[in-house]
Amino acid sequence: MTHYRIDERDLAFNMFECPGVQQLEGNHPSPDAGEDTLRMVYEQISAFSQKVLAPLHDSGDREGCQFENGSVRVPNGMQQAWNDYRELGLIGMMASAKYGGADLPHFFAAPVAELECGSCVSFSMLPLLTRGSANLIASFGSDWLKDRYLPNMYSGQWAGTMCLTEPHAGSDVGASTTKAIPDGDHYLISGTKIFITWGEHDLSENIIHLVLARLPDSPKGSRGLSLFAVPKYRTADDGSILGGNDVECGNIEHKMGIKASPTCVMNFGTNQACIGYLVGQPNQGMAHMFQMMNAARIEVGVQGLAQGSAAYLAAKAYAQERTQGSRKSADGFRSLKIVEHPDVRRMLATMKALTEGGRALLYHLTLYLDLAHYHQSEAEKYEGYVELLTPICKTFGSDQGFKITEMAIQTHGGYGYCQEYGVEQYMRDVKISSIYEGTNGIQALDLVFRKILGNQGLHLKNWLAEITQFAGEIRDGELRAISSALLKASQEVAATAQFFASCKDMEQVQYHAVQFQESMSHLAACYYLSRQAQVALEKSKSSDEVFYTEKVLTAQLYASELLPAATFALTNMRKDPPIGLRISFKP
Amino acid sequence: MTHYRIDERDLAFNMFECPGVQQLEGNHPSPDAGEDTLRMVYEQISAFSQKVLAPLHDSGDREGCQFENGSVRVPNGMQQAWNDYRELGLIGMMASAKYGGADLPHFFAAPVAELECGSCVSFSMLPLLTRGSANLIASFGSDWLKDRYLPNMYSGQWAGTMCLTEPHAGSDVGASTTKAIPDGDHYLISGTKIFITWGEHDLSENIIHLVLARLPDSPKGSRGLSLFAVPKYRTADDGSILGGNDVECGNIEHKMGIKASPTCVMNFGTNQACIGYLVGQPNQGMAHMFQMMNAARIEVGVQGLAQGSAAYLAAKAYAQERTQGSRKSADGFRSLKIVEHPDVRRMLATMKALTEGGRALLYHLTLYLDLAHYHQSEAEKYEGYVELLTPICKTFGSDQGFKITEMAIQTHGGYGYCQEYGVEQYMRDVKISSIYEGTNGIQALDLVFRKILGNQGLHLKNWLAEITQFAGEIRDGELRAISSALLKASQEVAATAQFFASCKDMEQVQYHAVQFQESMSHLAACYYLSRQAQVALEKSKSSDEVFYTEKVLTAQLYASELLPAATFALTNMRKDPPIGLRISFKP
Repeated sequence: MTHYRIDERDLAFNMFECPGVQQLEGNHPSPDAGEDTLRMVYEQISAFSQKVLAPLHDSGDREGCQFENGSVRVPNGMQQAWNDYRELGLIGMMASAKYGGADLPHFFAAPVAELECGSCVSFSMLPLLTRGSANLIASFGSDWLKDRYLPNMYSGQWAGTMCLTEPHAGSDVGASTTKAIPDGDHYLISGTKIFITWGEHDLSENIIHLVLARLPDSPKGSRGLSLFAVPKYRTADDGSILGGNDVECGNIEHKMGIKASPTCVMNFGTNQACIGYLVGQPNQGMAHMFQMMNAARIEVGVQGLAQGSAAYLAAKAYAQERTQGSRKSADGFRSLKIVEHPDVRRMLATMKALTEGGRALLYHLTLYLDLAHYHQSEAEKYEGYVELLTPICKTFGSDQGFKITEMAIQTHGGYGYCQEYGVEQYMRDVKISSIYEGTNGIQALDLVFRKILGNQGLHLKNWLAEITQFAGEIRDGELRAISSALLKASQEVAATAQFFASCKDMEQVQYHAVQFQESMSHLAACYYLSRQAQVALEKSKSSDEVFYTEKVLTAQLYASELLPAATFALTNMRKDPPIGLRISFKP
Repeated sequence: MTHYRIDERDLAFNMFECPGVQQLEGNHPSPDAGEDTLRMVYEQISAFSQKVLAPLHDSGDREGCQFENGSVRVPNGMQQAWNDYRELGLIGMMASAKYGGADLPHFFAAPVAELECGSCVSFSMLPLLTRGSANLIASFGSDWLKDRYLPNMYSGQWAGTMCLTEPHAGSDVGASTTKAIPDGDHYLISGTKIFITWGEHDLSENIIHLVLARLPDSPKGSRGLSLFAVPKYRTADDGSILGGNDVECGNIEHKMGIKASPTCVMNFGTNQACIGYLVGQPNQGMAHMFQMMNAARIEVGVQGLAQGSAAYLAAKAYAQERTQGSRKSADGFRSLKIVEHPDVRRMLATMKALTEGGRALLYHLTLYLDLAHYHQSEAEKYEGYVELLTPICKTFGSDQGFKITEMAIQTHGGYGYCQEYGVEQYMRDVKISSIYEGTNGIQALDLVFRKILGNQGLHLKNWLAEITQFAGEIRDGELRAISSALLKASQEVAATAQFFASCKDMEQVQYHAVQFQESMSHLAACYYLSRQAQVALEKSKSSDEVFYTEKVLTAQLYASELLPAATFALTNMRKDPPIGLRISFKP
């Protein structure tokens, strides 16, 4: 069985030693927004992920989900895991106490997300979607809906989903054709949605689907979509189940990974008897849905980071144990652990830098989520950072997480390819992260056109100015090489954004958007890791010297071995129109 | 069912329009080494791969192999495929007519390898190993062994394997402990080998295992290994089966991919009754085995190229068919095929460049294999190229083939993650190519220490001089940008090799070896693709203008978008000792 490994030391460093929790003081209304609560949350999720979820990682993959006559059977152990999870009270951890929530900071959700996703990513999407759909109803739903739905959802008695994609509307959500016809105080919904994660199961008493659908005479495209809460079962005011709501699962997908998570075709209103409740304003569905999508995009980034971390730690443990090769020594030959081979060290060091860079980015981003709500003077700036860094987190986590799993397989040699060691499953499971919640190509368009060019680069300018200031702070000390690498990368990001802004050919910008995003994400990971290195440098004479020293080394490695290639890629894209656009690819 | 796509036009270009076959004239002894025979071979393998092998790609993955009581059951259809393959007479295509071979050039094996590996890689390893083990016996075996074994092996009545790896000797083959005790005209073999591809099955009447084992009192390490032919069944002089030879399959691995190919634990001589025949000289087993390993390494590179090509063509076809998004046009909105989106074009163009660059490399390398044997004046130079480019082909094919399958999944969006579309299987199947036949890390040590530093860089100097000369030829014309990119990359490769030679710290060289190898492999692919662009440029006014023009564009894209990053990586490695070596990774 795969042994799920947690980097407890690095998590503690991110949670308690970097100035995250402290920044919440005075900038968050909850009296529980302090270290003690965070420690309690962490200990709960740590124990749960190791005891309950980790065993499901393997068995869930082997068993998979079964579909029969409209029912979905999920792997053994899922029901118990969901029951146990509900007990932890984490579904509504960021929600209002009024509906059963705990009013905790987003920052506290970072370790929860990492450990859920790292121990059993298939399971993790059930609380993710339940939490996200409930939060969406909390933000935009009527009081009537909130009173009836939220307590049941935050307790996990009911689950939730998000229903966007249709067979002919994947990345182009605006092409959706699902209909909503007014019918008294509710609407009649009809249409088919695909790729619905946890769309059907019987772990909860009810499932609330948040569905994008089109009202009669609404505008074309995404501006004509409205948001509806569509229950699997109709319920009475007291929450008791009245009966079916003409919501059917038509089939499930057979996938490369995340096999323990049912991915469903959902048919709404096959018999014209599917009722839904409008959430928010008519034709504002897409705008409303973005709240849930943004949260999900960050968590998808965490999926990559979390599985990358687990794969990295598995590879490190394997490399420390496995003997292979020998070296001349004073008295003949000494056998070597593979961790002593330089190529293995290169892979481990790269995995470490990407994992810890991604984690540093995540902890800063979740802090910004809180500061964007509650910071006394600069909430707007932090809101800009959240907008800018959401696609960065999603794509860095998914792409680099995937690369880490690839290196972890390679470190294991032939055993990495065998199911027994579990790392091949991390690669299969994590691959979806670059595709769903908006492919990484869609994220790049969001980043470049909406988050940068859409506001004349304001958020980017603020953010780069902060990096420049930090680079100035560390210019003369032990971190000076990092300083110059960050400065150079920042300048190239700025110059390339400027080039995009002045570019007359939008196709040229679109062509380079993914590569720009990847380069900028390396700058982000290196920057936040370097901030942490600054903290570690001050502590490096303390009792835990190896940890702090190697944190500094890891940031230095990022700046000297990984960031320069990203910087170079930016330089290389500011030239003639790309040749790739001149190849016809005609059928 | 996955539709296997062959790039017929590009294969024809490689086979017949580039000066490969012509160079064999006067430099190969076979009267059949001309275009007509090559065309016949191609047509045979093309029909076979599409009709017989392609359907096994999907079904073989779903069924997998079953192990029960020492027997292995392979997927349905394998027996028929093997029977049909035997009819084609390709197992001995490069072998002497004396033993039933066809005496054809290695160059002719390039399309055979690509189409076998692209249509069903699990199957392809059965003929690969049978051919390779027979060729090894042909090179080093006694006449007695050759007369008895080769006709049966080249006809496919018997199959073959290679048995190197042991549980505690993977990359470190020299640590093998399997024993061989002299016993009359043969030896008694005892030991366990793992990861033996097609180690046990009943598709053939017999299986000849080529086993590395240690004679009594032999030196330690790889210099004490000898090579033995160990039959599954003992046979009479006329080839008839006499009975078992104490060779047992102990289990099979459960793998991420290549599930239709049994990967076996093989136990030899559990009852002290396993006989084997010495092949070649005592203690020269490793040196002899390299003949088979080198051929297998090239073919593993082809596995990557072939599955990359199939995945690329699947992605291209999907992008040409799939509608998503729309664009303003004169009369409202026009829906778009995804091939019209710049990010999709970037992925397709990158896949095209890597695939065609890899194919150009392969066709040149197989030509060099022939010229190394038969060239009238420069056989030695070509032998040097073969040595240098074998790890390059293996690692470029496997690493870039994997990247292509990743981009093919991404191009497919959510469907790329579903088994139904088949591209996810290409990724799972191809992942092993970077691991077996010597991990890509081992290849890099072979490249840097044996093939470059081992002979004072002679082969590399010859090869770079050829590139420099070519760059001079195209300096002033339409390919001038390629010329300067090739020159710059060549200079960086030379400078880095020089740096390695002068480097006092071998660990620093080992740390960078994989990255050096990757950069050099991009230079190789770009160089050979550019040679083909030179051919295409002369033809670009002919009837097939789009193909030729886009071949030129593809080489230009390689030189402007892919090669510069590889060149930059070389620059970045000639500096301070790598920081990764300073991180302890202690348990």
